[in-house]
Amino acid sequence: MKGISILGSTGSIGCNSLKVIEHLNEFRVVALAAGRNMQILAEQVERFRPDLVSCDGERSAEELLKHLHSRGVATPRIEFSEKGLVEVATHPQAETVISATVGAVGFVPTLRAIEAGKRIALANKETLVMAGELMTKAAEASGAEILPVDSEHNAIHQCLRGERASEVKRLILTASGGPFRTKSKEEIENASLDQALDHPNWKMGEKITIDSATLMNKGLEVIEAHWLFGFDADRISVVVHPQSIVHSMVEMVDGSVIAQMGVTDMRHAIQYALTYPARKKGCVEPFNLCSLGQLTFEEPDMERFPCLRLAYQALRIGGTMPAVLNAANEVAVNAFLNGKIRLSEVAQINESVMAAHQNSSSVDLSTILETDRAARSRAADFVRGKSAVPI
Amino acid sequence: MKGISILGSTGSIGCNSLKVIEHLNEFRVVALAAGRNMQILAEQVERFRPDLVSCDGERSAEELLKHLHSRGVATPRIEFSEKGLVEVATHPQAETVISATVGAVGFVPTLRAIEAGKRIALANKETLVMAGELMTKAAEASGAEILPVDSEHNAIHQCLRGERASEVKRLILTASGGPFRTKSKEEIENASLDQALDHPNWKMGEKITIDSATLMNKGLEVIEAHWLFGFDADRISVVVHPQSIVHSMVEMVDGSVIAQMGVTDMRHAIQYALTYPARKKGCVEPFNLCSLGQLTFEEPDMERFPCLRLAYQALRIGGTMPAVLNAANEVAVNAFLNGKIRLSEVAQINESVMAAHQNSSSVDLSTILETDRAARSRAADFVRGKSAVPI
Repeated sequence: MKGISILGSTGSIGCNSLKVIEHLNEFRVVALAAGRNMQILAEQVERFRPDLVSCDGERSAEELLKHLHSRGVATPRIEFSEKGLVEVATHPQAETVISATVGAVGFVPTLRAIEAGKRIALANKETLVMAGELMTKAAEASGAEILPVDSEHNAIHQCLRGERASEVKRLILTASGGPFRTKSKEEIENASLDQALDHPNWKMGEKITIDSATLMNKGLEVIEAHWLFGFDADRISVVVHPQSIVHSMVEMVDGSVIAQMGVTDMRHAIQYALTYPARKKGCVEPFNLCSLGQLTFEEPDMERFPCLRLAYQALRIGGTMPAVLNAANEVAVNAFLNGKIRLSEVAQINESVMAAHQNSSSVDLSTILETDRAARSRAADFVRGKSAVPI
Repeated sequence: MKGISILGSTGSIGCNSLKVIEHLNEFRVVALAAGRNMQILAEQVERFRPDLVSCDGERSAEELLKHLHSRGVATPRIEFSEKGLVEVATHPQAETVISATVGAVGFVPTLRAIEAGKRIALANKETLVMAGELMTKAAEASGAEILPVDSEHNAIHQCLRGERASEVKRLILTASGGPFRTKSKEEIENASLDQALDHPNWKMGEKITIDSATLMNKGLEVIEAHWLFGFDADRISVVVHPQSIVHSMVEMVDGSVIAQMGVTDMRHAIQYALTYPARKKGCVEPFNLCSLGQLTFEEPDMERFPCLRLAYQALRIGGTMPAVLNAANEVAVNAFLNGKIRLSEVAQINESVMAAHQNSSSVDLSTILETDRAARSRAADFVRGKSAVPI
């Protein structure tokens, strides 16, 4: 049995990862890190008996202990906050680390896992968006393999099997278009939280669901694809594919397009990342092409979805700019989730924070962390400015 | 410059192959074999200056000489009939042979090219249908590589790059459904020649266009796929995809489907077969996903298209039965093209000839040739029987 750790075990990807791990029956869960959802974490501890767990702070730790005692479950070692995340990420018996926390909190722990040479099943795209150069250099140095769990990048990874990078014309990321694909600019501006959370195809966490509604998610994926596969912005396209059946594609220099298709279930990509280069029998229902109805493809509209344009802009500028966009967006989305700003103001805040940023080509850890902090602070200021205006 | 020969140079695949060869500018055409179209062959000789050409007989050879003289073109060595085809196929300077004759006539020459260790760009599917075992064993012995030019098998070849055969669940051949996809059994029965030749997506030769209308073509492709990729009938599926954009797919054990898409232009597959494992810049217009409209998939209807069912049956029976089906079908399609039988009678003749055949598991060359001859003779008898009834 190979050891495995999960950062973000109680989230959507974390829970699905544990289902895949049970199905595969070739991994031992050695460490789990969660935030505050201690009831689910206690259930996971009971089922998987990790050596180590981590949560966000002492209060959650106490809650976890209570849950474990009431279930009569032996207590694993418990750590918390970033130190705990790092210990989970670098557990000596973990050969594979699933990085599935939401947002920037997973950044340093994932970097430490990469430095420790673990295989990374990466669901936390913010990590590569913030510090792609740092992460990929660390992986080169340690020999860590980064396998994408995002369905789009996972698809591209599959399409690139047996292909030469020099013979690839471009990567084509598919986007569902989200709940506002056919909506007017005005409708998007006045969208309610419930409308924005109503993703047509994928059941995911709240942050990524909002990012899907603004197409920021696709923008972050363009940046992620750049770091995972080494292609410039000009060689990464986005095409809207409302059915989310084609998970992404690769166009070759000879005009051939290789596409990966499947059911919209994250367990497929998780399993692929865990078993690569092998493929094992899947645990999701088989894919029935003939029951699909039609598949369609459209150009994305950068006018109604300015976040996608901002992401291309940040990738082309490079340096610390992608980290700025990522930080601003995290703050802005949080503000939207808390009812403080309108959906359309997410892009406005992102653009304002980018405009106010003095870009730096230095991308060492301390620069990235300071950039992230400053951008968050600036974004929070903009949120306060917007919040002063009644919605 | 690598030497290349073409069997069937004046047909649809042959002419497209020469366009690809001009585009690639890395091959020298050393030998061309055609049937009776001497005007086009003369033009090809003028342009490509092969050492050797072959045609169907002395009369065509004389006609070719006239054309060449009137153009003031130096005369290459001219051979004819099967001997000529074999000489073209085994020309010592040909590293690659494009096998693109229609029907059984290409069988022996292609076998000789395989035995000579040439790379075979195979467009003549009848060759593998008649004698897949013989051909693949000869290729194993000589080290000849067989690269499929049929767009479906070419697509599957592309989808299998970097995949392990043991991890493939099934091959999925796409079928356009042909001109009668939405037509009733009665409409198909009474279809005119023009209706049957009106293929919705591909411009091809007459024989293959009729085979597409009956789905016999897809059935022959199922058998071809068996020999090219080593999968049993149960692991080869057919799905109707009227837009012919997805050229074929592979479903992996983990549930992932890898698909190859592209424009409906044979030059893509020809080029792939010539340059593999490299991919070179293509000579066809780029593929625009967003202008496609919708892509759809349906189950094939074996009731309205019994030829597909017969092909599966022949593959499962094995031995000489696929050769019988191929021979019967060639005779029956020819009879339909000549107005002697109805379209629906093609399947009836195929089924009758199969039913009358004593199957043999021996598949050596003489058995195959005798089987082919006997099946043709029987099919011709059935045609005469049908023709006695006024259409």
